[in-house]
Amino acid sequence: MNFVEKLNAAAEKNRSMVCVGLDTSPELIPPGMSVLEFNKAIVDATVDLVCAYKPNMAFYEAQGEKGLDALYQTLKHIPQHIPVIIDAKRGDIGNTSAAYAKALFDYFNCDAVTVSPYLGFDSVDPFLKYKAKGVIILCRTSNKGAADFQSLPCQFEGKTMPLYEVVAIQASRWNTNHNIGLVVGATYPEELKTLRQAHPDMPILIPGVGAQGGDLKLSVKYGIDSHKRGIIINSSRGIIYAGKGADFADASRRATETLRNDINKVIEGLKK
Amino acid sequence: MNFVEKLNAAAEKNRSMVCVGLDTSPELIPPGMSVLEFNKAIVDATVDLVCAYKPNMAFYEAQGEKGLDALYQTLKHIPQHIPVIIDAKRGDIGNTSAAYAKALFDYFNCDAVTVSPYLGFDSVDPFLKYKAKGVIILCRTSNKGAADFQSLPCQFEGKTMPLYEVVAIQASRWNTNHNIGLVVGATYPEELKTLRQAHPDMPILIPGVGAQGGDLKLSVKYGIDSHKRGIIINSSRGIIYAGKGADFADASRRATETLRNDINKVIEGLKK
Repeated sequence: MNFVEKLNAAAEKNRSMVCVGLDTSPELIPPGMSVLEFNKAIVDATVDLVCAYKPNMAFYEAQGEKGLDALYQTLKHIPQHIPVIIDAKRGDIGNTSAAYAKALFDYFNCDAVTVSPYLGFDSVDPFLKYKAKGVIILCRTSNKGAADFQSLPCQFEGKTMPLYEVVAIQASRWNTNHNIGLVVGATYPEELKTLRQAHPDMPILIPGVGAQGGDLKLSVKYGIDSHKRGIIINSSRGIIYAGKGADFADASRRATETLRNDINKVIEGLKK
Repeated sequence: MNFVEKLNAAAEKNRSMVCVGLDTSPELIPPGMSVLEFNKAIVDATVDLVCAYKPNMAFYEAQGEKGLDALYQTLKHIPQHIPVIIDAKRGDIGNTSAAYAKALFDYFNCDAVTVSPYLGFDSVDPFLKYKAKGVIILCRTSNKGAADFQSLPCQFEGKTMPLYEVVAIQASRWNTNHNIGLVVGATYPEELKTLRQAHPDMPILIPGVGAQGGDLKLSVKYGIDSHKRGIIINSSRGIIYAGKGADFADASRRATETLRNDINKVIEGLKK
């Protein structure tokens, strides 16, 4: 089963397009608790409500060796049927990207990875060669600075279009193994609409609905594909830090359930 | 002493603009030797001939926990007066880039980091806030795929220019702490010439002279600044794998010395 099939199966089983971002900082979790214990509690509380988990490497690397061990153990704790997207935003020259792919797909055994397109095809290709794994390419990110370069009007094959549209076109051409997705922030729903219309088949990872204030309704409406799937709506801080006290896991479950139901309500509305 | 000062001091002391890329793969080093032992031998053999070391994170992450421990111990072995550029090509939304900065600057205690510009200013800013550390932004990378996006003609402030030139202009505007450098591959000397003319003051990290076949002479000629410094010529595989046998460290010393002398000869020639 490849990444897209695993994602669709998990989404169907849990009737959910919610991805929980496991971006755990030791200073933001209940005192006396380890990152691993916290993550296990979040996973146990949400595992029947999500289509994927997405830990961001940065938060684990920031803790050094023990952080990466906590990540490794967290990944082992996530049940096999829920795909894990490692948010690493990697991208380097060929032989180096191959080493990153080995780290993330072989050592950490993740199902998909986020990749930066700046270095072009040969920097993405070593990831694509893992046919069963997903490669989710940064296209229009959710942050304010995204506009600095991603929105620049570019000349491409006789047309003028923003850089992120060129990235999406190239990504779709590279997608011969059907294992590419795009990252498009919920903070830019109009861009999401254009990208989905141009690329009906690629899964879209949509961060930015929680702490970053993206528009959930429009993100679902514009992001969903013709089979009423193909979106991965990520919330990190909005879910894992939903509660601050001893009941943090219950609070994360409630936040996940609310987000899942809100998404499903939008989809139900679209079907009418 | 900030990164640029430390770099210039090391370059002056060792009369060298050579950066040795510590991209160590266990399968390419003498059998029975650990990555740490190999790295220590390379450092010991070259430490009076370089202006910097540049380990690429990917090769250590590919080995999991023990790889990162080998990196950590390698960095401790490099003498304080030689700056370490960690080649990580990171870049994420603000709070996540801050976590990466913490990992690379606080935990690993590196002097500089390579950063990808695709996410824009707020993804680079958390690195820039470490005023004593260097932030080397990917501009025109050395690989073939670099052309896919970096060379696209972009409309920027009423002019049309390749994306990498826009990146360089923005980088120079962000450079209020004087701690930004650029990555420009030796495989694109004409682009290097244009970029140096437009940006006389930023240090330029130049990969691609070894295994990648970049042009050393033109890279030095076009990259050097008006003070006859400001370039960091990196060779990784060409130096660390210069010899395959028991004398690998001696071979790496000879390769480093040759590269250093070749660079210095070009600079001498320019002065005439």
